[in-house]
Amino acid sequence: MNDLHDMSLRAREAFYTLSAASAETRNRALLAMADTLNAAADRIFAANGEDLRLAEAGSLAAPLLHRLRFGPEKLAQVTAGLHSLAALADPIGRTTLSTEITPGLDLYRVTCPIGVIGVIFESRPDALVQIASLALKSGNAVLLKGGREALLTNQALCACLRDAAASVGLPADCVQLLESREDVAAMLREDTLIDLIIPRGSNAFVRYIMDNSRIPVLGHADGVCHVYIDRDADPETALRVAVDSKVQNVAVCNAMETLLVHADAAPGILPPLAEQLRQHGVRLLADGRARALIPDADPATEEDWRTEYLDYVLSVRIVDSLEEAIAHINRYGSHHTDAIVTADRDRAGIFLGRVDSAGVYWNVSTRFADGFVYGLGAEVGIATGKLHARGPMGLEGLTTYKYKLIGSGQTMTEVKAGRIAYTHRPLQEDCPF
Amino acid sequence: MNDLHDMSLRAREAFYTLSAASAETRNRALLAMADTLNAAADRIFAANGEDLRLAEAGSLAAPLLHRLRFGPEKLAQVTAGLHSLAALADPIGRTTLSTEITPGLDLYRVTCPIGVIGVIFESRPDALVQIASLALKSGNAVLLKGGREALLTNQALCACLRDAAASVGLPADCVQLLESREDVAAMLREDTLIDLIIPRGSNAFVRYIMDNSRIPVLGHADGVCHVYIDRDADPETALRVAVDSKVQNVAVCNAMETLLVHADAAPGILPPLAEQLRQHGVRLLADGRARALIPDADPATEEDWRTEYLDYVLSVRIVDSLEEAIAHINRYGSHHTDAIVTADRDRAGIFLGRVDSAGVYWNVSTRFADGFVYGLGAEVGIATGKLHARGPMGLEGLTTYKYKLIGSGQTMTEVKAGRIAYTHRPLQEDCPF
Repeated sequence: MNDLHDMSLRAREAFYTLSAASAETRNRALLAMADTLNAAADRIFAANGEDLRLAEAGSLAAPLLHRLRFGPEKLAQVTAGLHSLAALADPIGRTTLSTEITPGLDLYRVTCPIGVIGVIFESRPDALVQIASLALKSGNAVLLKGGREALLTNQALCACLRDAAASVGLPADCVQLLESREDVAAMLREDTLIDLIIPRGSNAFVRYIMDNSRIPVLGHADGVCHVYIDRDADPETALRVAVDSKVQNVAVCNAMETLLVHADAAPGILPPLAEQLRQHGVRLLADGRARALIPDADPATEEDWRTEYLDYVLSVRIVDSLEEAIAHINRYGSHHTDAIVTADRDRAGIFLGRVDSAGVYWNVSTRFADGFVYGLGAEVGIATGKLHARGPMGLEGLTTYKYKLIGSGQTMTEVKAGRIAYTHRPLQEDCPF
Repeated sequence: MNDLHDMSLRAREAFYTLSAASAETRNRALLAMADTLNAAADRIFAANGEDLRLAEAGSLAAPLLHRLRFGPEKLAQVTAGLHSLAALADPIGRTTLSTEITPGLDLYRVTCPIGVIGVIFESRPDALVQIASLALKSGNAVLLKGGREALLTNQALCACLRDAAASVGLPADCVQLLESREDVAAMLREDTLIDLIIPRGSNAFVRYIMDNSRIPVLGHADGVCHVYIDRDADPETALRVAVDSKVQNVAVCNAMETLLVHADAAPGILPPLAEQLRQHGVRLLADGRARALIPDADPATEEDWRTEYLDYVLSVRIVDSLEEAIAHINRYGSHHTDAIVTADRDRAGIFLGRVDSAGVYWNVSTRFADGFVYGLGAEVGIATGKLHARGPMGLEGLTTYKYKLIGSGQTMTEVKAGRIAYTHRPLQEDCPF
């Protein structure tokens, strides 16, 4: 067990140094990371081999073993990612508002890093490099906790990243690794030193984090995504979108968990759709009216409408109107990503306006909800909350801003005496600092 | 005691209706609010008279009595505020990102309301109208809890706002009033129906809210603001800025609580500054080196550096370098607003870059930290956290965004098969929905 208070203090110091570093230095650190990882390839593969051996001995399930593997192909992906990230525009120091408050008193709102961020992620070791590099690009220090089964690989990767930071004169402590659950519990108590926790994991875990820390948390608790097939849906589009949303990858947060079908469209669409889904191995749970059309579906319970299966299971419900579909989604959904299939532009507009979710889609699979797909660069996670960042969260989500006010001795006393009047004139120039 | 679950459900329904209303309808509701308030002026003044009578009987302190008063002048201010707000640009429906993902698949990021917001505010009844109107302008439903001593006034005001909303066809329940502490406790449990809590009150109260709810909280816990007088400060500017920051209004969150002075500047500046502050009735608490220059100051303790006095009290410390000043502010401050007084542009730039606060000022009084001063229109509060909104929080802080993805049947299966390639081409047009 580490001394988390001491690690947090060092992370805070590292953040202050990092936040004063130029974009060029931060980018050089990213390129140096690619170099140190390549140079340590054998050591990393050996560590990963040992993690895999231990995981196999511990009977880790095959899909998890697959995610744990970090070989030459992963290394090439990760270093390519570092090079792309270094080439991206600097998210820090952008002026987003310039206002003359009164002549000689100029206000600028300028983007800056958040500070110290704790990230808890799943077993994929490449996530360590991705998260650490996004944090460094945006001037943040990170405390990282990866999956227990990837510990040796993560240690090897983290050592490379720290060496790379130090090699360009940045503090190694801008990237630090936590190693146990006790470390995580201790981190959650450091609310004066850590600015943000990003948990990537199961719902229960995210809730545990939220309930056990004063530190703000950004993360997604659920991915109960819907596809609603409207009265006027093109049948072929409906089948394509629904099947893809469910089966292209069932284990991800942007996969469909509940299908809603308008009563007028159901007789024509539901039987062939159910047949296709069954061919993909999907088990259907349906309400009474849907079961009349797809008799071998099992009955759905109230609980099913709230369930994220992450599996070859789908709940199905028939609704009588667009409004009923919207109400169902807003009531039972998780505000992640929800799609309508319809040929009616006006009805699509109503759906996009009224569904209270981070992603609202018209005639496209829910599987497109992803930071890379959106063109945001890599993503740190998908946020289903509404504050700060919503939906796929890239570099911008790792920044905040500060107001810089540049004066020449102005006082509120002069304002109250009427000797200073506000102009609130928009300025064209960026902040000179 | 109200049934908060039922009120929250009705607020949520009201939000869904409100979020579908046009800007024109929302603006008409704001103007109708000014009308209903004017029409009910006598009833409001009578209610306020009764609140004042009860408060005087209960020996409320004079400054609080003053804040509680709601007469013709306050009414005129409030209705003028409603007219200005109606004239402001709509914060909702703005497209902030447009990207072609692939030909025929367009992504838009569009601003939208947050949802249901719970606001707990101090005794000023005009705050009720200000907060409710900012919420309505930005499409949010609110649950409001004002000071106990203003209950009759708040009930009268709230009735007018609800009537006004209903008169333009919006649900009256977009504005609802809580009446007791038990109501607040019950509201904090409605985390599936309420999206955000904004507490305006004492530190202890804000912490109580944060510790007792899963609902995200935006607020400020402390205002420990600093003025740092640098080695190269112009003495006249230093005195003006420091005196104004401390005494122009001691009871506000953007008043200075700690003065830092560079050792080289202290002998020349500290004695005359202390004299001016003393003439304003300010009691000084100083570290040992400062007391050598201002002998009648009392000794400051470690606790003083973290204390928000909100009174005619100031802690004073001498530092040996700009770096030491920055480190002190980042360690002991509350990340609200901090100013440097210096004639050296480079040193000002270092301060503005490295001080980790919502407002970083050069040669200007900390008292300028305010949404109206910044030109943001009215403010809901000042946020000292770093997520979502930071610093004075106006209409923009009451919005979030959603991603609208407009396709024609695209599937991830086609992407994986190489039949769809991402273009990520920036689009010029705003979202058509």
